[in-house]
Amino acid sequence: MSNIQASATALEQAIRESDEFKDLKGAYDAVMTDEIAKKMFDDFRNTQMELQQKQMQGIEITQEEVDQARKVVETVQQHEQISKLMEQEQRVNELINNISRTITKPLEELYGSEA
Amino acid sequence: MSNIQASATALEQAIRESDEFKDLKGAYDAVMTDEIAKKMFDDFRNTQMELQQKQMQGIEITQEEVDQARKVVETVQQHEQISKLMEQEQRVNELINNISRTITKPLEELYGSEA
Ligand SMILES: [Ca+2]
Ligand SMILES: [Ca+2]
Repeated sequence: MSNIQASATALEQAIRESDEFKDLKGAYDAVMTDEIAKKMFDDFRNTQMELQQKQMQGIEITQEEVDQARKVVETVQQHEQISKLMEQEQRVNELINNISRTITKPLEELYGSEA
Repeated sequence: MSNIQASATALEQAIRESDEFKDLKGAYDAVMTDEIAKKMFDDFRNTQMELQQKQMQGIEITQEEVDQARKVVETVQQHEQISKLMEQEQRVNELINNISRTITKPLEELYGSEA
């Protein structure tokens, strides 16, 4: 196994054992085992994905869709378990972004060296 | 320093010391220190970025632009040093993609666990 693969696997294990990931898993499981919360969360994710896909395909998003999406967000934010899950997702995203910045430093330094 | 930060730094170091990264750096420096190669490569990158930005903004790309971009690609591919650089970039991209797949496994497992 290369140094890189060994280091990547060690990092994967560190992520798995981190408070951030464990808390995310706890929050995710809490939502997924609550039928109503799960349905609300699934609706929220589906709405988000539909809008994202439209944006990527350059399809115009109507005011009605924007309003509808805002309503769904407001509803899930008021749900304690879902809002906790979204908070934990945010924390893990930040963690992954920090890792990403660290491991792409060699490339940034290389490409940033051009005057 | 957390386990995660220590592991990410170890991984960064392993990337920096890898053949893939060293070869990329060698190929990059070879192009950047050759005035003609550097200009060709910069033109190529600028053309690519312009087209990407247009695509992201949903601006239509004309047939003329497509033809022009293809011509630029064909020209740089015939340049030995640039084509070597592009090959090394491809290798490092694969390396980074593999790392990315490894460290996002915990998240994939979590979100993939939903029936
Ligand atoms: Ca802690
Ligand atoms: Ca080797």
